[in-house]
Amino acid sequence: MIDKFNVRTDLALEEKERFESDDVEISGVVLEEHYDEQKEIRITMVKIETEKGARTMGKPVGNYLTLEAPGMADDNEEIHRDISDELEKLLRRILKDHKGKQESVLVVGLGNRMVTPDALGPYVADHLNITRHVIREYGRYALHDQRMRLVSAIVPGVMGQTGMETVEIVKGIVKETEPDLVIAIDALAARNTKRLNRTIQVADTGIQPGSGVGNHRSAICQETLGIPVIAIGVPTVVDAATIVNDSMENLIQALETSEALRGVGLVLQGYNATEKYELVKELISPHLNGMFVTPKDIDDTVRRISRIVCDAINQLCVCVE
Amino acid sequence: MIDKFNVRTDLALEEKERFESDDVEISGVVLEEHYDEQKEIRITMVKIETEKGARTMGKPVGNYLTLEAPGMADDNEEIHRDISDELEKLLRRILKDHKGKQESVLVVGLGNRMVTPDALGPYVADHLNITRHVIREYGRYALHDQRMRLVSAIVPGVMGQTGMETVEIVKGIVKETEPDLVIAIDALAARNTKRLNRTIQVADTGIQPGSGVGNHRSAICQETLGIPVIAIGVPTVVDAATIVNDSMENLIQALETSEALRGVGLVLQGYNATEKYELVKELISPHLNGMFVTPKDIDDTVRRISRIVCDAINQLCVCVE
Amino acid sequence: MIDKFNVRTDLALEEKERFESDDVEISGVVLEEHYDEQKEIRITMVKIETEKGARTMGKPVGNYLTLEAPGMADDNEEIHRDISDELEKLLRRILKDHKGKQESVLVVGLGNRMVTPDALGPYVADHLNITRHVIREYGRYALHDQRMRLVSAIVPGVMGQTGMETVEIVKGIVKETEPDLVIAIDALAARNTKRLNRTIQVADTGIQPGSGVGNHRSAICQETLGIPVIAIGVPTVVDAATIVNDSMENLIQALETSEALRGVGLVLQGYNATEKYELVKELISPHLNGMFVTPKDIDDTVRRISRIVCDAINQLCVCVE
Amino acid sequence: MIDKFNVRTDLALEEKERFESDDVEISGVVLEEHYDEQKEIRITMVKIETEKGARTMGKPVGNYLTLEAPGMADDNEEIHRDISDELEKLLRRILKDHKGKQESVLVVGLGNRMVTPDALGPYVADHLNITRHVIREYGRYALHDQRMRLVSAIVPGVMGQTGMETVEIVKGIVKETEPDLVIAIDALAARNTKRLNRTIQVADTGIQPGSGVGNHRSAICQETLGIPVIAIGVPTVVDAATIVNDSMENLIQALETSEALRGVGLVLQGYNATEKYELVKELISPHLNGMFVTPKDIDDTVRRISRIVCDAINQLCVCVE
Repeated sequence: MIDKFNVRTDLALEEKERFESDDVEISGVVLEEHYDEQKEIRITMVKIETEKGARTMGKPVGNYLTLEAPGMADDNEEIHRDISDELEKLLRRILKDHKGKQESVLVVGLGNRMVTPDALGPYVADHLNITRHVIREYGRYALHDQRMRLVSAIVPGVMGQTGMETVEIVKGIVKETEPDLVIAIDALAARNTKRLNRTIQVADTGIQPGSGVGNHRSAICQETLGIPVIAIGVPTVVDAATIVNDSMENLIQALETSEALRGVGLVLQGYNATEKYELVKELISPHLNGMFVTPKDIDDTVRRISRIVCDAINQLCVCVE
Repeated sequence: MIDKFNVRTDLALEEKERFESDDVEISGVVLEEHYDEQKEIRITMVKIETEKGARTMGKPVGNYLTLEAPGMADDNEEIHRDISDELEKLLRRILKDHKGKQESVLVVGLGNRMVTPDALGPYVADHLNITRHVIREYGRYALHDQRMRLVSAIVPGVMGQTGMETVEIVKGIVKETEPDLVIAIDALAARNTKRLNRTIQVADTGIQPGSGVGNHRSAICQETLGIPVIAIGVPTVVDAATIVNDSMENLIQALETSEALRGVGLVLQGYNATEKYELVKELISPHLNGMFVTPKDIDDTVRRISRIVCDAINQLCVCVE
Repeated sequence: MIDKFNVRTDLALEEKERFESDDVEISGVVLEEHYDEQKEIRITMVKIETEKGARTMGKPVGNYLTLEAPGMADDNEEIHRDISDELEKLLRRILKDHKGKQESVLVVGLGNRMVTPDALGPYVADHLNITRHVIREYGRYALHDQRMRLVSAIVPGVMGQTGMETVEIVKGIVKETEPDLVIAIDALAARNTKRLNRTIQVADTGIQPGSGVGNHRSAICQETLGIPVIAIGVPTVVDAATIVNDSMENLIQALETSEALRGVGLVLQGYNATEKYELVKELISPHLNGMFVTPKDIDDTVRRISRIVCDAINQLCVCVE
Repeated sequence: MIDKFNVRTDLALEEKERFESDDVEISGVVLEEHYDEQKEIRITMVKIETEKGARTMGKPVGNYLTLEAPGMADDNEEIHRDISDELEKLLRRILKDHKGKQESVLVVGLGNRMVTPDALGPYVADHLNITRHVIREYGRYALHDQRMRLVSAIVPGVMGQTGMETVEIVKGIVKETEPDLVIAIDALAARNTKRLNRTIQVADTGIQPGSGVGNHRSAICQETLGIPVIAIGVPTVVDAATIVNDSMENLIQALETSEALRGVGLVLQGYNATEKYELVKELISPHLNGMFVTPKDIDDTVRRISRIVCDAINQLCVCVE
């Protein structure tokens, strides 16, 4: 019901949970979970197998691997190395499903460097081990490792800065430089604040740039670019309207079930979904449009997570399997 | 009732409104308003005159001048010049109440340069016309204007970066360089998103660093520094918990008054304030602690407003009256 | 003679002067000068008309307009406005020579944002009035001015950051977004330190990215992109080897002409150009390769000049003639 | 002779070499060298023991430890760890000579964040493990290590940004927060380009802020602050005038000794030092004042070296000996 709101999440995992909470089985969607107790890392795979599943989930057919680790934003190098290693494995696993050459990789750092929670993509690009120009000029021998991938990178900026759709920029560069593969990094919006800065999603379905802070643009994906696109996303914000909506949904639920306020519940239960929806909708301030929620220490957090993602990509590219 | 929540605002104006909505008159607090229709600039003065007024308002005795202008965040130079000029007048007006020399000014750019909505203070400091070292070395003649103030500036950083209370840093510098006056710039938290990035508060009561994004530290004020402190604050964030709380308060009010849900209202009216408070409190997620709400275009906005504030201070310092 | 050294300059004006100092007339190269005494702005046009002239000058056939103003790096808004207005005129003048639509402009901010004297291009792009996405979505009415150009911008980064030739990136974007015109901004290398940060060169021959700090890449020009390319360059560095070479050339000249050391001169005059060249060459430290010379206050200087260039482009784009 | 020029170096090691090249023994100055062949790290200690030695060297009495490693600027983590470990040892060694508590450390990141080669100090401060505020609020238990030092940090900015002498700022903070020790980080000027970005100097004599890019200010040292000051400096620039001067000195020397130009040499040898000095002085362009020489890849270099220095300080502060 209240789900009719545009309760936004970029995480397939959260989309799946939404349905589970309603005890609905989703046909065409497969779930797989693995928890490493010692490292406190949980891996979840959501596989959307059919178009029907895609419609229900509101996300394209494909594989969504989610890594959750509570220590992701902490200042702890050992934990970061564990997460990097795990992320590298997820990337290798998702790449295995895709045939064809994967020798040359274009990394796209999406987002806005000047807005802290949206700077993840640019920060990752800043520290990558860029090799394409060296290998092209001197050959692989120059890098002491003949199995190294050719890595190039671009930070396209956001539409307000460029006047162009990000996909236009990336498509042009792909056609001109002909990489085998795009890895796109972006900050995402989660639905639940407890997922912020402790979750990494890897998907082979591409990405919607700008979705990290809210506006949908033409997708960066195999359909638009003509080559496989692996998306790495980290939720760093929650839409302000989502938080308010969730809280009110909780309040209504509490009113319906609370012992203390049983009377209210009985009355509310007499009203149908549409009536409740209208009630909540008019209470969410229009001023919340274009607003996001993010933690105060987001600067350190984004910097740390960007290093984790960057290390994983650097390791992945040292060696073509 | 729900007011028992720590519904945070750094704006005296909003504190005042809170009471007015309850139709309470506040003894010891004087309000004065002026609206310039042509320039669309509203000036409000809240004067807290007595300790009783201070306790009620939760803010120290002193003058709080608020400038509101809907065009503050727009990309429009003419509007910005109007606001700068008006802000300069407010600064001159508040300085008139303070006796003693005002020849030498230390500007303190509070906040965290790395977190976009908290970067206002550092950005203002970046573009100031710094003159103290030139006047001390070459005399006023060097600057073609003998009535110029000596301007110095510091960006102290936040406690997580320095390990020191900001007041420790500023106090040390004040003792060593002996300015006549401190002007402290900070990003503030508002209660209402519609005030964000369109309001400037000037106060002669000093400032609580870190309050722009949430933690109260020892005040930077005449008591701690020994010289007058003029605070310039711009609300760029709202606490996430505030937004949720407000929305739920609205929902309860709607339930109590709605025709469609009259039954619920009747039941709720049977419960007392404490019961309602408990209900809302347990629904606000602890994950919202340390979270703030801010607009997506905060990078351009903060940059523009910082130029307005900077221009006003530069004009103020060209000429000691 | 010593000219055999790679005495680098990106300024056609300096290339021309080099020959004049030898009293050589260059066939196929026309020079035109204008000095505005009141504004202290000198405009020089070097027109390379023939392939022979191009070979002699080491620069492609085309128009090179140079604006020199001693106050360019000063902190003076009025002077900056004069220079912006003049630069806008130069741009309109050079555009007049090119037929075809000039309605849609892609601005390319070349250089490395992280190296201060090379950050000019990125800084200009940061403050441009970007309109393409707005006009495409809402039409020209949205911008209150139907004659406005469509402006888009890209900061491609340098090869060490991207692994790609800049021309590959720009070519891809041009093919995809089809602008009528490219305006490329870059920091240049001058031969003479006295030209630094007081000269702007506008050329219709395109640009060599990276030349501002030294390595030649495939050109960004009409030949490679298929549309006219206007280059705006500001010299912010001098190659370290150039400065040393010049000084030694001066020393040898002094030895040859000095009264006090007349004897040395007589001996040196007995040696031919090649011998002198060998002498100087072996004295220039190989450690100077990849080194540049720049002023200590380059941060303020680059920021100020980037605003001048940005204002001129913004004015140019408000109105298609 | 040409030494009468202000041939600037901030490295005691280079000051020492200057004399050695003249085969002069310096009384009151002791030299000690150690070379680790495997790690390719050379440690040199210059100990200025007497006031006479200090006058000759142009540097205060004290210990100057220099670490030279050709791989310092390379992208190689293992080498960086070796250098960090060695630097930590040098810091512990120099601290041992100083009695008194060393529990609480204020790190001062000198220099200008906006000028790449001068940003070393600010970059080091950015990544330090700041503990003072945590230990003061929660005690050492909060950090799992009771022997940890209290670390605070400040990035004071340069005089053009603050209008204050850096020593005024630091002195004020030291008086207010009472650390036991200051560690000041600064970019230095070397005399020889081959020392750039491969040398770290640790000294117990304090530092001259701004010397990294050229202007001498009141020293930050035990005399002015009242507590020991350890200076960590890395040469990232060479004065432009120094490079030119050196080259011309080489040219004159070559003329005096060259077989091919023997005649010139004979003539020059007939002139005295003052005559040669005058000759060179008038050839060094006044435009070189305030200019510095630095490598094109200074952004990566400064970032990498700042991590080495930061890691060494973090390790040093984990454990009070």
